[in-house]
Amino acid sequence: MRPSGRTPGQIRPITFTRQFTTHAEGSVLIEFGDTKVICTASVEEGVPRFLKGQGKGWVTAEYGMLPRSTHTRMRREAASGKQSGRTLEISRLIARSLRAAVDLSALGENTINIDCDVIQADGGTRTASITGACVALVDALNYMRNKGIINTNPLKHMIAAVSVGIYKGQAISDLEYLEDSAADTDMNVVMTETGKLIEVQGTAEEEPFSFDEMQEMLQLAKQGINELFDEQKAALS
Amino acid sequence: MRPSGRTPGQIRPITFTRQFTTHAEGSVLIEFGDTKVICTASVEEGVPRFLKGQGKGWVTAEYGMLPRSTHTRMRREAASGKQSGRTLEISRLIARSLRAAVDLSALGENTINIDCDVIQADGGTRTASITGACVALVDALNYMRNKGIINTNPLKHMIAAVSVGIYKGQAISDLEYLEDSAADTDMNVVMTETGKLIEVQGTAEEEPFSFDEMQEMLQLAKQGINELFDEQKAALS
Amino acid sequence: MRPSGRTPGQIRPITFTRQFTTHAEGSVLIEFGDTKVICTASVEEGVPRFLKGQGKGWVTAEYGMLPRSTHTRMRREAASGKQSGRTLEISRLIARSLRAAVDLSALGENTINIDCDVIQADGGTRTASITGACVALVDALNYMRNKGIINTNPLKHMIAAVSVGIYKGQAISDLEYLEDSAADTDMNVVMTETGKLIEVQGTAEEEPFSFDEMQEMLQLAKQGINELFDEQKAALS
Amino acid sequence: MRPSGRTPGQIRPITFTRQFTTHAEGSVLIEFGDTKVICTASVEEGVPRFLKGQGKGWVTAEYGMLPRSTHTRMRREAASGKQSGRTLEISRLIARSLRAAVDLSALGENTINIDCDVIQADGGTRTASITGACVALVDALNYMRNKGIINTNPLKHMIAAVSVGIYKGQAISDLEYLEDSAADTDMNVVMTETGKLIEVQGTAEEEPFSFDEMQEMLQLAKQGINELFDEQKAALS
Amino acid sequence: MRPSGRTPGQIRPITFTRQFTTHAEGSVLIEFGDTKVICTASVEEGVPRFLKGQGKGWVTAEYGMLPRSTHTRMRREAASGKQSGRTLEISRLIARSLRAAVDLSALGENTINIDCDVIQADGGTRTASITGACVALVDALNYMRNKGIINTNPLKHMIAAVSVGIYKGQAISDLEYLEDSAADTDMNVVMTETGKLIEVQGTAEEEPFSFDEMQEMLQLAKQGINELFDEQKAALS
Amino acid sequence: MRPSGRTPGQIRPITFTRQFTTHAEGSVLIEFGDTKVICTASVEEGVPRFLKGQGKGWVTAEYGMLPRSTHTRMRREAASGKQSGRTLEISRLIARSLRAAVDLSALGENTINIDCDVIQADGGTRTASITGACVALVDALNYMRNKGIINTNPLKHMIAAVSVGIYKGQAISDLEYLEDSAADTDMNVVMTETGKLIEVQGTAEEEPFSFDEMQEMLQLAKQGINELFDEQKAALS
Repeated sequence: MRPSGRTPGQIRPITFTRQFTTHAEGSVLIEFGDTKVICTASVEEGVPRFLKGQGKGWVTAEYGMLPRSTHTRMRREAASGKQSGRTLEISRLIARSLRAAVDLSALGENTINIDCDVIQADGGTRTASITGACVALVDALNYMRNKGIINTNPLKHMIAAVSVGIYKGQAISDLEYLEDSAADTDMNVVMTETGKLIEVQGTAEEEPFSFDEMQEMLQLAKQGINELFDEQKAALS
Repeated sequence: MRPSGRTPGQIRPITFTRQFTTHAEGSVLIEFGDTKVICTASVEEGVPRFLKGQGKGWVTAEYGMLPRSTHTRMRREAASGKQSGRTLEISRLIARSLRAAVDLSALGENTINIDCDVIQADGGTRTASITGACVALVDALNYMRNKGIINTNPLKHMIAAVSVGIYKGQAISDLEYLEDSAADTDMNVVMTETGKLIEVQGTAEEEPFSFDEMQEMLQLAKQGINELFDEQKAALS
Repeated sequence: MRPSGRTPGQIRPITFTRQFTTHAEGSVLIEFGDTKVICTASVEEGVPRFLKGQGKGWVTAEYGMLPRSTHTRMRREAASGKQSGRTLEISRLIARSLRAAVDLSALGENTINIDCDVIQADGGTRTASITGACVALVDALNYMRNKGIINTNPLKHMIAAVSVGIYKGQAISDLEYLEDSAADTDMNVVMTETGKLIEVQGTAEEEPFSFDEMQEMLQLAKQGINELFDEQKAALS
Repeated sequence: MRPSGRTPGQIRPITFTRQFTTHAEGSVLIEFGDTKVICTASVEEGVPRFLKGQGKGWVTAEYGMLPRSTHTRMRREAASGKQSGRTLEISRLIARSLRAAVDLSALGENTINIDCDVIQADGGTRTASITGACVALVDALNYMRNKGIINTNPLKHMIAAVSVGIYKGQAISDLEYLEDSAADTDMNVVMTETGKLIEVQGTAEEEPFSFDEMQEMLQLAKQGINELFDEQKAALS
Repeated sequence: MRPSGRTPGQIRPITFTRQFTTHAEGSVLIEFGDTKVICTASVEEGVPRFLKGQGKGWVTAEYGMLPRSTHTRMRREAASGKQSGRTLEISRLIARSLRAAVDLSALGENTINIDCDVIQADGGTRTASITGACVALVDALNYMRNKGIINTNPLKHMIAAVSVGIYKGQAISDLEYLEDSAADTDMNVVMTETGKLIEVQGTAEEEPFSFDEMQEMLQLAKQGINELFDEQKAALS
Repeated sequence: MRPSGRTPGQIRPITFTRQFTTHAEGSVLIEFGDTKVICTASVEEGVPRFLKGQGKGWVTAEYGMLPRSTHTRMRREAASGKQSGRTLEISRLIARSLRAAVDLSALGENTINIDCDVIQADGGTRTASITGACVALVDALNYMRNKGIINTNPLKHMIAAVSVGIYKGQAISDLEYLEDSAADTDMNVVMTETGKLIEVQGTAEEEPFSFDEMQEMLQLAKQGINELFDEQKAALS
């Protein structure tokens, strides 16, 4: 039923390439099939103004797509002078998700800036970004410990994310572009390795979805995300 | 347990004031307790470029807050020269939700622009906006039929929305500001009157939430939204 | 002669609704017939940089229109990324006028931000804004005295404003939209309750106006503004 | 009493240099004492969209100041990314004033763009701009007639402008910077050579002004503007 | 003398990875040592307005850097709302250079958009961009011929570029970051494979340079660029 | 061969008008034939943030063109909300060139802001700007010494600039607009009075240029710039 021949719950092959670039404290190329995102984590002394003097750290995130990461060239956001609503929405989602992975008090007054830049898009760029950024974040936290910037590990738990949806009446996991553009419903799920939910964003594209379909999607998401945790651990070991 | 003494599933008093302003084809002041939003629906001939010549219509939405709708004055977005990520995200949510209520083919090549302007905020402004805008939309569609712009009713079903969350470990419905700012999880749910889901956006603010908590919140949302459908019908009759 | 049947010097019915919204220190809905403006006065500690350390306060103002306050929907300025020249011009006029009502030295190093948001427009929105904002300002100053932020009353005198014009060859007062769009000359006058002028802005739209017509318009303005002072006092008592 | 020793009604020496630059159809350097403005009128085929197909023309205007036309350097507006409210307000004033000088129907579907760029500022830049731009406009209209673009003269009457004010309790004409910055009231008056008013913009800077003071200022303005008409005619002959 | 031990005229190891991403008609990852740039060439029907109806094509280019391509994180230009002068200057240089490689008449009314995105920076990003983009351009032109969009080969000659400079008093080729930041003079040279110059941009950073030093740098540039032409051909064969 | 009848190496008549405007510490109108640029140098206490506390000064520059300095009116950059790539590129070139003329350590923590505003353009505006700005800079430095702001002369050497190019197969100097728009190659050269190079920017517009042509252009540039140094000295004496 799926263009790729995958089973409904089957996610695409995943690869993590750590130290993909040399300057960032954490730098990961994540691939979900043909979706490829460069995720970097940059450590910076100090925190935004609203946090100063509280002894806590912060995690921010920005998302972008190279103009020709997509089938037809998109206008470069730097040239058009503003980021689209979609870009800002995804940036906010990535930042909230990663903040939920970190004990900000244990970070000290330091900021970690996450950048997720899509170099090739085939569906699921926001969930790939979160999953890859979490590995880059771990590398950055290790860097901070090695440099003596922090003494304890601020990581509360790994997080990972997958997209699920209703495609031709069936719940499926990790939608690629062909599926995504034809799906009735699209849902992004972010979870902790402790089996809890960080974000659930489900949207009916064409047809409203039932409570039962919601349950099916959540179950597929849980299963797929558990596989992602295994991949993350393998990559980090 | 709740600051207002409400029970967990109890929503605030709701009022709809139709024809709140005179120029818009649909104009509704919706009040969810102390949250007050002016929702207008403006009918415009023609559609955005990407839809031209397809015989279909479109629904857009923009959300804004008056600078002093909040406890402390916010900077006016028109003066700062750009809309925040939050504003754009809510505008997109409202637009997607209302498009799901309408058979765009039955609209002809016409656009309905929804404007939701918060004049007083006390939590739940985005769900109040959707709930009020649906009533303004119905008034605008009636106007179009009365003027002979369209011949059939493009409304597929009413939609309404409520926020739910986990507050002091308990699932509650229709969070006011005091609850919202202290909640562990915040979830916005948009449903059709046929009992299906249009949007589910759940976010862990402090603590991740379990699948069971998710179910409890969805049940409260369903119950609250059903009450909103009754209020909408009363207002429209 | 006038579409409404009013006499040349007759202004529209005026209402002030104080405490229209709950968060602002001063919040007034002013109605000049069908023109409706929400005027809020927000008290803020501190002053702009150019005034720091002088022991004086400041009054600013911003004006906006809801997109569908007008007959046809206007583009939202926050979305277009800049305020129009008209918006900035009116904001500057409101701010200058209200500063003229206040002894800035008696304010201490505090700022009062005036926001005038038009929710329904039928001519005279800038003069309604000034007239309503002065009442909101008084409420904000009273708040400051009650809170002990200031010890004396910085109000030098009430101010109020009305538009006058030459319509079908005749000087008239308080133009509504139908008159305004057909007038030869449009003049906005701001006065103090002591009978002096703060601002006079007269513009020939089609035909230049004579010195005699100018005198007639000024007399009508004086008479109309005196009625507004009575209404302001009634609202404040 | 005046820093320059001028009598209250005495305006500064005025010079017009026509053909100051070579490309524009009309190009005038106007000097009001030390205030120097380059005024150009550029003829362009076509009209803005809202006028298309009506057989009428249009006149627009833009005002700017070189960064070091003032005592201390101002930030370049092109670099800061937006024009100030003051700049837009003056641009609108110049455009309205010059449109009042022209029979737009006699222009055909052509646009005249006025640019007023202050190269040295010593008070009264907006009134100098209007007065100089009117001469540049006449040159551009003559160019159009010579080229056969129009057959009749669209000029209805010359216009000119002067600033007046209350300085040390006395009405004076054509304020230079030292006077302007210390004046209680500042008023800009634009008139036609037929003795009628186009614009009157009076602003109390510190002290409200009386109706009597308003009359005195208007009389001085009339007298000063009449001298400007003589200068314009001399320059054009 | 050089940090890397290279001889003055020795360029870094160069690699081209064609088809680096899948959507673009031409997509090349170019590496000059540790400098890595993704260069894509996107074919688009139609030309900018100023060229319409002339039967000629166009080539544009945009340059960008990922925020953490550099030692310390740079602000994302899409977020800051404008491209820096440096970014625009480099984009213009790349576009001019590639237009010089193409017979625009032979392109038909089609546009090729070049995007050069630096994922890792170690000096020489603009010359690497030009050198890599030329290969991506060839792939895009081949795509156009294979699809029958054009019938002849519009490529006039390959182009390539290298940076040269004066470092510690000595002319050297292909400066890496450590050298670039300490160089007295920096010069970028773009040449054709026919041995002619397209662009020469030399800048004294600290010390002015002599005519003799200019000659030495030009000779090194010629030699280095000739090696680049060999690498380009090997990559394309 | 040249439209003006000039010999290949002949530059246009040059005039410098010092103290062209009164407020700036240095203010020069430079004319290269029909190209006219107002160059001002403004002295300001303090330096940009990245230089604070180092005891060094800074020189910045901004370039602009009046909208009707050109044959057809250009859009005003302040109105369009951003400076073009060309404008930023020229501003950067002027700033770099002038910084090369000054010993920044001898400036103290002061900034000199250069503004070059083209009031009439006939080719070579950027080189005229640099040549005129250097004279304005000298006047500003003299002002600083006279006021006791600095004790030594920070000027290392005069700088001047000229454009050269290949026109109808021949190297020529100081291109006017007619030549510039038809030239095959355009090169801007900035030199010190000590005979060294500060900037060389050569661009093939249509045809690549040979190394020999490059030498010819450089020789013409040297000769022309030497004449400019004579003119600068005459103007300053």
